[in-house]
Amino acid sequence: MNIPTTSFPRVVIIGGGFAGISIAKQLGKQEVQAVLIDRHNYHTFQPLLYQVSTGGLEPDSIAYPIRKIVKDYPNFYFRLANVESIDAEQKNVRTDIGDLSYDYLIIATGSETNFFGNDEIEKNSMVMKTIPQSLNLRSLILENFEQAILTSDLEERNALMNFVIVGAGPTGVELAGALAEIKKGILPKDYPDLDTRQVKINLVQGASRVLPAMSEEASEKAEDYLQSLGVDVWKNLRVTTYDGEWAKTNGKPIFRTATLIWSAGVKGATIPGVDGKEFTTRGNRISVNEFNQIKGLDDVYAVGDIACMQSEVYPDGHPMMAQPAIQQGKHLGKNIVRKINGKEMKPFQYYDKGSMATIGRNKAVVDLPRFKFQGFFAWFVWMFVHLFFLIGFRNRLVVFINWVYNYVRFDREARLIIRPFKNTKRR
Amino acid sequence: MNIPTTSFPRVVIIGGGFAGISIAKQLGKQEVQAVLIDRHNYHTFQPLLYQVSTGGLEPDSIAYPIRKIVKDYPNFYFRLANVESIDAEQKNVRTDIGDLSYDYLIIATGSETNFFGNDEIEKNSMVMKTIPQSLNLRSLILENFEQAILTSDLEERNALMNFVIVGAGPTGVELAGALAEIKKGILPKDYPDLDTRQVKINLVQGASRVLPAMSEEASEKAEDYLQSLGVDVWKNLRVTTYDGEWAKTNGKPIFRTATLIWSAGVKGATIPGVDGKEFTTRGNRISVNEFNQIKGLDDVYAVGDIACMQSEVYPDGHPMMAQPAIQQGKHLGKNIVRKINGKEMKPFQYYDKGSMATIGRNKAVVDLPRFKFQGFFAWFVWMFVHLFFLIGFRNRLVVFINWVYNYVRFDREARLIIRPFKNTKRR
Repeated sequence: MNIPTTSFPRVVIIGGGFAGISIAKQLGKQEVQAVLIDRHNYHTFQPLLYQVSTGGLEPDSIAYPIRKIVKDYPNFYFRLANVESIDAEQKNVRTDIGDLSYDYLIIATGSETNFFGNDEIEKNSMVMKTIPQSLNLRSLILENFEQAILTSDLEERNALMNFVIVGAGPTGVELAGALAEIKKGILPKDYPDLDTRQVKINLVQGASRVLPAMSEEASEKAEDYLQSLGVDVWKNLRVTTYDGEWAKTNGKPIFRTATLIWSAGVKGATIPGVDGKEFTTRGNRISVNEFNQIKGLDDVYAVGDIACMQSEVYPDGHPMMAQPAIQQGKHLGKNIVRKINGKEMKPFQYYDKGSMATIGRNKAVVDLPRFKFQGFFAWFVWMFVHLFFLIGFRNRLVVFINWVYNYVRFDREARLIIRPFKNTKRR
Repeated sequence: MNIPTTSFPRVVIIGGGFAGISIAKQLGKQEVQAVLIDRHNYHTFQPLLYQVSTGGLEPDSIAYPIRKIVKDYPNFYFRLANVESIDAEQKNVRTDIGDLSYDYLIIATGSETNFFGNDEIEKNSMVMKTIPQSLNLRSLILENFEQAILTSDLEERNALMNFVIVGAGPTGVELAGALAEIKKGILPKDYPDLDTRQVKINLVQGASRVLPAMSEEASEKAEDYLQSLGVDVWKNLRVTTYDGEWAKTNGKPIFRTATLIWSAGVKGATIPGVDGKEFTTRGNRISVNEFNQIKGLDDVYAVGDIACMQSEVYPDGHPMMAQPAIQQGKHLGKNIVRKINGKEMKPFQYYDKGSMATIGRNKAVVDLPRFKFQGFFAWFVWMFVHLFFLIGFRNRLVVFINWVYNYVRFDREARLIIRPFKNTKRR
């Protein structure tokens, strides 16, 4: 990997998500040699991926070059690589660009889509965990409308205009809201030769309410907002199979759809060597103690979505969201410095800043620790918070301008099929 | 294709480039049925593709949805399709989504890269005629730097940091300038562990001067600017072979390079049925008369890059650039309306508004019909003209903001490998 050996201890960080970047910021100017490894050369602002899929934002606006983040840190190295396995005994990381030994290893690999073992759904459904995946979904949605025009078979046409979103967490809810706005504001103008009233947006939720991680109040309001936008909300319903045409459920309705979006769950993105029953708990997350240390591997830490730090308040670990990742990353970075300096590490305390989700234009639900609110003001707060947490001045500015433009003009101009998903001959 | 038959004559336009869009604007509100076919669902602003390749602009900012352009036109249809052949006798167009008959056919397919029959170069070189191609080049450049870090073989490392641009028209010159700026402003910070002084940018030109279509004055100044930026300009030199590693020339220097960009020529993008010796002339362009009519096919027109309208002033046809395409498109649109209304068509007159090229920060060369100038003011004019001709308010605003940001911060934030070009496993 061409990393020089120095007298500084070497900290290897796997993953440049919210957790990995937070750690990097803490270690950047310390007397350590840090190596950050990611399979992308950019940090992805995942909470806005659904806006990329729906043409509201350009993909590059929510990505930020990792090299630009670490460029001011001496003794900091970035490597673009896939990590293949970890040998904790030899203190070695194996990647597709070679091996790397470490003194301290931080696993910040985040999460990946959980299909709960259903290979058929995995093969035929769309997901939104990375920018390329979100762009694939954007292409597919647009390609389906182009195809809907061409067919005279009404059933087929309706299937092409029928969207099934499985899972009503923030991703599913926000995507459903965005699609509903597109149905109303853009499709009738873009496709005058289609009866776009036939476009259906189904949100299928296994639990008894949408946004189950939020308050009952937020769930109720979110469902109201979705319904007023014309989204069909199906609760207590699970999609059991999807062959690319028919989505069967454990209940009455079955859906004929050309687009099934799976946002029904995530699981820890483990790496061979620190995986399996020995290390992981529910949701394939790695069990860690209050210092983010992995049991039995003193110098290996897990942080963010991949880490499950059980406590009395959080018996299943912290929620798999940006805030715990950012806070854990910052805390762990400081703890590593403490440890290297022979000081005692401090236990992590999560400060719940609340959670939120937006549903279309003007509407959002916000749960703060002390009070909850919904509607227009909540939507304003949602936007402000997301702009604040975006990395980089240019990204903030460009996202802000796109939002103002889209809001004023009822528009989403990035409805572009740059890399076709279905008809790859047209690439 | 599901296009209804009406009493209006049907005009089929193949291609949504500068010419096709100009025609659409003329026909949009006339008593014709118009069908615009393109293989992309967006119009591409080709003059700024080199900025996409070099991370200065987001790809979506220079693309504009065609459906958004035509949405206000009644009797206007857009179809996303590849045209496969034309049967001028039967007045029929064959595409990958079915056949379509026409009353009037307008071929506005533009141009494609001309490798002059050199299959080896075609296979191994990069081009910049479409957004996906430009994104591929962006990925490759960044992947090469990531790879350069990893190798201890100095020769291989230098090859990864050696860029050979073949052809010094506006595309080649502007790309060389942008790469030189990146070498100076971004690479030393992004790659502290690389000796980026070893980065070489070679501009290889077969003719005796760069920008041969412009004035001698512009050529000289452009070459000065390039050299002061550290670009190696090779004149009277042709690249004859490139196997992916070695670029051989008809002269002394041979280049070991991992990135050869071919911008040495374009040719008309003809369609089977209206191609070959019967219809085309030099550069594979279709011969047309002063009404853009194709010889022997009264109701078939060619316009823009694909059309070669020979005249005394332009014995080889108009230059293959945006301006002739825009002007011909506008004129032909009006002529079609005249013809349908039984009026006489008017011959096309090209009004040369001049040409320009930019070379890095602060510098450009501008040839106007009556006077020529270079330097900072020319660069300002270049920016203003490009912003003006970009389609869409949002695109103009976002491009403008990116330019201001890049200028003030000496930066280019879209240095992202979203879809890897080499290591496709990382997709």
